[in-house]
Amino acid sequence: MAKSDPTTPRERYRTQVRAEVMERAWEQIATAGASALSLNAIAKHMGMSGPALYRYFANRDELITELVREAYRDLADTLHAASETGADLAGLARTLRTWALADPQRYLLLYGTPVPGYQAPEDTTAISQEIAVTLIDACAAALPPATPASPLATHLADHRTWAAGHPAPPEALALFLSLWTRLHGVLSLELAGHFTGMQFDAAVLFESELATLLG
Amino acid sequence: MAKSDPTTPRERYRTQVRAEVMERAWEQIATAGASALSLNAIAKHMGMSGPALYRYFANRDELITELVREAYRDLADTLHAASETGADLAGLARTLRTWALADPQRYLLLYGTPVPGYQAPEDTTAISQEIAVTLIDACAAALPPATPASPLATHLADHRTWAAGHPAPPEALALFLSLWTRLHGVLSLELAGHFTGMQFDAAVLFESELATLLG
Repeated sequence: MAKSDPTTPRERYRTQVRAEVMERAWEQIATAGASALSLNAIAKHMGMSGPALYRYFANRDELITELVREAYRDLADTLHAASETGADLAGLARTLRTWALADPQRYLLLYGTPVPGYQAPEDTTAISQEIAVTLIDACAAALPPATPASPLATHLADHRTWAAGHPAPPEALALFLSLWTRLHGVLSLELAGHFTGMQFDAAVLFESELATLLG
Repeated sequence: MAKSDPTTPRERYRTQVRAEVMERAWEQIATAGASALSLNAIAKHMGMSGPALYRYFANRDELITELVREAYRDLADTLHAASETGADLAGLARTLRTWALADPQRYLLLYGTPVPGYQAPEDTTAISQEIAVTLIDACAAALPPATPASPLATHLADHRTWAAGHPAPPEALALFLSLWTRLHGVLSLELAGHFTGMQFDAAVLFESELATLLG
């Protein structure tokens, strides 16, 4: 026998409307960009009045936060699942690329040009930190035993509060920052269409950057 | 005696109005993002009617193109001037960082999340290619004499139409792509505020990436 749903019909309806609003919001972001997101336009599209919709999302920023939270959550879970099934640093990097290419706007909402006037709340930072922890774990495991100290690692030895108590050596934190920025550099320019017309294979560049990172 | 201005007062007025529109547009981009750019809002701000303003810029895309062209032109000239006064690859990279930090929105308009629905015309590609040529020149000069062929360089030997006939060896083109994407990775995440609160010095990461590139 199925377990009875603990939520009331009213709560289920609310969840359903919020999910539809978010779906419409992703469509709007794809066609007009996150900074042009409009609750009124979404309401119109759904055949609701603006004020009725505002009962589900108090304002644009609350909606963006939900989208950001959903995107970070999905990426964190995707990387965590890959890691659990044995993906090493290269595997996680390729998982990130697949995730980014599957939905460019979702990737760009997290890591692209910020939506002006929007400030993500603390709890989204906590999810992005989960992503960092999964990658730092893999960086620590990928680090050759005798990695020489670099000026960056030396700097990070004293500037590691952002790693939230992760026990990885500073060399692993340095590798994480290089990994993050290099993969983002390739991915964001690819997703923004800068390689279009250049007629080289962005996957070859991605693999080359990855190979250099792994020494 | 000053040479007489070949333009008519009408033409000078036109140039002046277009310059003021572009100034307002940069302000709008800084506060609301490029995708929220509105000719009507600019017209209102300038005390003009929308239709009057449309005599100066036919539509939003023409205005964005002018902004993109101005930004690319400024970056191309800045790098070219640095190169002419002896800057090597590291010097050019630092010049790019200074240029990006001086006006984050200008950098992000060129290399950040694309404005949905906007397609830059061919002639802006020509200016971005000037930027590439200056950097490829510096990459060719910075390349150690016996750089081993990488899979990326091998790939680029057959995929180099984008380098528009530049005589640099494929290894220099590979170095250019690594340089571009790595510097962009650090700069774009820094400008997007992703390092805020991480409390490490982004300049140290930038220099570390640069040092690794230069071998």
